[in-house]
Amino acid sequence: MLTNIRIVLVQTYHPGNIGASARAMKTMGIDDLVLVTPRRFPDPEATRLAAGAQDLVEGARVVESLTEAVADCVMVVGASARLRSLPLPHFDEPEVMARELVSHAGHDRVALVFGRERFGLTNDEIRCCSHQVSIPANPDYGILNLSQAVQVLAYETFKAWRQRPQSGDSPISPAAERMPTRQQIDHFHAHLGRVMRQSGFLTQPHARTEAHLHALFARAQPSRRELSLLRGLLASLERDSTAQ
Amino acid sequence: MLTNIRIVLVQTYHPGNIGASARAMKTMGIDDLVLVTPRRFPDPEATRLAAGAQDLVEGARVVESLTEAVADCVMVVGASARLRSLPLPHFDEPEVMARELVSHAGHDRVALVFGRERFGLTNDEIRCCSHQVSIPANPDYGILNLSQAVQVLAYETFKAWRQRPQSGDSPISPAAERMPTRQQIDHFHAHLGRVMRQSGFLTQPHARTEAHLHALFARAQPSRRELSLLRGLLASLERDSTAQ
Repeated sequence: MLTNIRIVLVQTYHPGNIGASARAMKTMGIDDLVLVTPRRFPDPEATRLAAGAQDLVEGARVVESLTEAVADCVMVVGASARLRSLPLPHFDEPEVMARELVSHAGHDRVALVFGRERFGLTNDEIRCCSHQVSIPANPDYGILNLSQAVQVLAYETFKAWRQRPQSGDSPISPAAERMPTRQQIDHFHAHLGRVMRQSGFLTQPHARTEAHLHALFARAQPSRRELSLLRGLLASLERDSTAQ
Repeated sequence: MLTNIRIVLVQTYHPGNIGASARAMKTMGIDDLVLVTPRRFPDPEATRLAAGAQDLVEGARVVESLTEAVADCVMVVGASARLRSLPLPHFDEPEVMARELVSHAGHDRVALVFGRERFGLTNDEIRCCSHQVSIPANPDYGILNLSQAVQVLAYETFKAWRQRPQSGDSPISPAAERMPTRQQIDHFHAHLGRVMRQSGFLTQPHARTEAHLHALFARAQPSRRELSLLRGLLASLERDSTAQ
């Protein structure tokens, strides 16, 4: 039903949570499940908790990294209760996040990413995301079980999908407004890094500076066209500096 | 945090669902849990799945009937995926239900009622409810796990509570607009039944006719004051008929 929307579970510890998450997704019309190095999978607990969603468990793609899981996605929302040191554009209402997610899913692939039960997502994994979302909860006890968080965000996504403006109501987003995939963003980051080192701005790998610039560009949310523009600028700077 | 809001679980089969539901409620600031004849309780599975919500499991009230669980409540919403033969006022958007629930919870007790995992609520139990709510889901696979349904409705309730109009914004609902408790409704039903039999309208117990009239009055949603009016009318009819 809800095409182009992917659920990614990163290093899930309890196989039962994979099964329960598969069930949660399926009740909300989502069927694209990707697992990044799950601790134990396949597993009878995953099958048992999946109930009638075993097809999703069996069809789940297993990959080695979050980068691989979301390379083709233009919007990647990390569900995380914990603040990180490099804040991404952040939704504090799942309902608002879901509307934007569904809007992009009209043309391109998007993903909701869930981290480990205890430890959430690492900083490197947050860097694979374009946005973060938190689920407003009891400040004294606000950590939902992993599959419950999947259920809530899938529920809001399905609601946004049901309430989406029909194609007759609003013009199809022009190609210029479409967002680049994570892979295209990664290529831009790599290009930016080469130019910074080539120019002498960065004399050695400086993760913090690079990550900070990446977060800045993430806030700008460049469209596919704008990213091409930036790549073109970088190419000119490269040619210009090599010519000197 | 969210006072006056109760979660009632009817004849839960899997103790793990009780624990997971307790956790789900607590993350959304709800702590009043009542269990109607749970199959196995207390149970280690309930404690295990409760995670940090063991206080709710330990403090849960266990009762013999749904009538007892909601006697003091003015709004009782049955969460049910299945249509019943005597339709109650029905919300097909949890978000809309939650706003009304939170509004009444400002002055009186309210409850969300969840049925058995496989069989939902019986017709008699639906009669203890003032409303029904369903969670919009995948038409091909739309039955959420019990604790997931609790999580979603608790989430919408918490959202409605966070977004409630502050007391400064709108006048406090006048006493005339407050709703009667289920116990007061039950007394009215009993009174109505006596008058119908006394008058010869019902020559023998006729459950279908009575239930149909109860559902009609449920749709009218009489306020506490209006119910007093109806009781007064019934009392006059009783005096009038005995006087003949």
